[in-house]
Amino acid sequence: MRAEIIAVGTELLLGQTVNTNATYISQGLAELGIDVYFQTVVGDNEGRIREAIRLARSRADLILFTGGLGPTMDDLTKDALASYLGRSVSEHEPSMNKIEAMFKSRGVHMVESNRRQANLIEGCDPLDNEAGLAVGNALTVDGTHYVLLPGPPREMKPMFDGPAKAWLRGIMNEDRRLYSRLLKFAGIGESNLEQALIDLIETQTDPSIAPYAKEGEVAIRISTKALSELEANARLDAAEEQINERVGQYLYAREDIALEEAVIRQLRASRRTLASAESLTGGLFAQLVTRIPGSSGEFTGGVVTYTNVMKHRLLSIPMSQLEGTGAPGAVSESTAALMAERVRELADSDFGVSLTGVAGPSESEGKPVGLVYFGLAERGKQTKVFTGHFSGNREMIRVRSAKSLLYRLWQALSGKEGS
Amino acid sequence: MRAEIIAVGTELLLGQTVNTNATYISQGLAELGIDVYFQTVVGDNEGRIREAIRLARSRADLILFTGGLGPTMDDLTKDALASYLGRSVSEHEPSMNKIEAMFKSRGVHMVESNRRQANLIEGCDPLDNEAGLAVGNALTVDGTHYVLLPGPPREMKPMFDGPAKAWLRGIMNEDRRLYSRLLKFAGIGESNLEQALIDLIETQTDPSIAPYAKEGEVAIRISTKALSELEANARLDAAEEQINERVGQYLYAREDIALEEAVIRQLRASRRTLASAESLTGGLFAQLVTRIPGSSGEFTGGVVTYTNVMKHRLLSIPMSQLEGTGAPGAVSESTAALMAERVRELADSDFGVSLTGVAGPSESEGKPVGLVYFGLAERGKQTKVFTGHFSGNREMIRVRSAKSLLYRLWQALSGKEGS
Repeated sequence: MRAEIIAVGTELLLGQTVNTNATYISQGLAELGIDVYFQTVVGDNEGRIREAIRLARSRADLILFTGGLGPTMDDLTKDALASYLGRSVSEHEPSMNKIEAMFKSRGVHMVESNRRQANLIEGCDPLDNEAGLAVGNALTVDGTHYVLLPGPPREMKPMFDGPAKAWLRGIMNEDRRLYSRLLKFAGIGESNLEQALIDLIETQTDPSIAPYAKEGEVAIRISTKALSELEANARLDAAEEQINERVGQYLYAREDIALEEAVIRQLRASRRTLASAESLTGGLFAQLVTRIPGSSGEFTGGVVTYTNVMKHRLLSIPMSQLEGTGAPGAVSESTAALMAERVRELADSDFGVSLTGVAGPSESEGKPVGLVYFGLAERGKQTKVFTGHFSGNREMIRVRSAKSLLYRLWQALSGKEGS
Repeated sequence: MRAEIIAVGTELLLGQTVNTNATYISQGLAELGIDVYFQTVVGDNEGRIREAIRLARSRADLILFTGGLGPTMDDLTKDALASYLGRSVSEHEPSMNKIEAMFKSRGVHMVESNRRQANLIEGCDPLDNEAGLAVGNALTVDGTHYVLLPGPPREMKPMFDGPAKAWLRGIMNEDRRLYSRLLKFAGIGESNLEQALIDLIETQTDPSIAPYAKEGEVAIRISTKALSELEANARLDAAEEQINERVGQYLYAREDIALEEAVIRQLRASRRTLASAESLTGGLFAQLVTRIPGSSGEFTGGVVTYTNVMKHRLLSIPMSQLEGTGAPGAVSESTAALMAERVRELADSDFGVSLTGVAGPSESEGKPVGLVYFGLAERGKQTKVFTGHFSGNREMIRVRSAKSLLYRLWQALSGKEGS
């Protein structure tokens, strides 16, 4: 089955509202194993909505609408579809009773236009709106299925997940469901990962193996349609093994979690704690780690020593290390090592990590933008220092630095350091 | 001019990514006075991209693409448009030099497919990508304008706002230009601001006065079309005065800068310095402030005391203040005051600020999720403590807390405290 989603609303075309409904519906359809080929956004204009329907009708056999079911003059989706299909529209009595009861219970006078929310296109199945007043519509005409959902996400979501999905299952004569697994990688770039797997990505069709694009993250999704989870897992396991043989050393999770969450879980499992000393990232590393609920068990905190004076005051790093002719400077291997060691001692934690470098826009201490040193101090072990060279603007260098340190930490915790 | 936006990417059709790019571009086009009639999402399939182009060509005279400019086999936008137009594609030398230089500087082997990112369709103007490698394309063929932008928002936004908008202004042959001014507010909610200005928003047409929707920020845009800046400014000034009479006390900037930047500028102007002590925000406050280039002149740094032990170790707050029967606890007015005072002393800065509260998901010390105390210590003055009650999920509570503290700091610095 080929689906198309039509979101109706001028506010979307003005950029005042983000089209999260299309995302939500697409996700739900993917889970049902229904392929979405197009998403369209059209304004509150009956002619253009009809044009969008005509077009979708030519390239899809399931058309889902969201928006335009409300009471105002701008709510035109039902009228446009009815006129396109040459059908009449009439009031759905149970929905009208519900609307009248709601106004009565709130002691508010009902404006006549609210009756429009109870409208059903001739031959439609009503879809109950548990969070609002506008009734949904679902019908099949000449082999094309139409589902009309409201626009407000708090009304759309329960209607889609409940009555609309039930209606869709009814029209689908397939027993097979889509199963998929997400593999998340760190320490390898998107294009290098794809290069390593290119033959699998191009030739494997069941399970399909595809790169998964998401800001700043590198992932692979493997998917298969199967009658049962057992059947699906057997196939997914085999595909995962093929992938692991090639790039297993970079795999940090088999589910959709961020690298910082993988690190916190490893710390938790080994009952160890972490503290951080940041310079160029200015708190970004700590902020990422503390986004994880409950991270205070593993991450005790740290310092943001954004100036040399603060490195001296908070971490007791000698000013002679930081400034003056022949001094290593704030951006140096030895300062990174000292920062990591001192913050570990201050916090009495198992690990102390540090970041110092040049985020830009201009160089610092004669060192180039993008040069970053990471310190990794561990209780009872020799402190390590890593060097990074990052490109991009100031914010990207900061984010890449924090992620790169998380990867080094993950390697140390998972014993994959040699790779 | 009628515009259509085509977002290319199978991840959008699978519901894995929200199409925020279409929203961002729509907003920008609205500001230029260009109407968007349709937004379309199509997968990484050359035939279907061509179909979307053919269709958009029939109903728009400006087509903006986002996505599909990257190095992988799935990046097909340039190929699809070139093939639709019957034009060739060739390498843009400056872009290729940039790509090679980047790989060289990082000491990473360049996979051959990266060359694709330097491709230009015959006759195109290149659009510089300051945050990535894929060059943008812009061209006009038979009266239809095409603009190709990358998919990752961090690359798309600067390319759209910079070279793409400049290119669009060049093709718009109107003598009257759109002039607009953005007024940014803090300390007032979006709906309260709108309520205070509702009659102006609804009745004023020149200049138009409109709320400007942007995640987590409250702003008003006033716009007018004029033959000169002088003419425009006279009208914009008059509208701004009307707005200021009602909500001037919440106005923190007359340009698109974040609240943290307004705070840094005020500190710079008065030659004062700031340090922070964070608990629930875990480094988020420091991270926001240090995003501003050159902020190390005003923000010295601070501490992330995520646990009680760290509040004791780094800030010398007595454990008896933090724990035990009858103790005020970590989430309390007195702890917020102590944190702010101690970090100010540690840093020897003019201001010390603190955040302590409950970000959730569950309550802490018997205190409810969303309760936050802010400390504001100033050299030679009485320390102040503010209380906040925030709703939303964990991350929203953290962000709102940090923004709320910035607002208090801005008030203190601008002398608008009474309001």
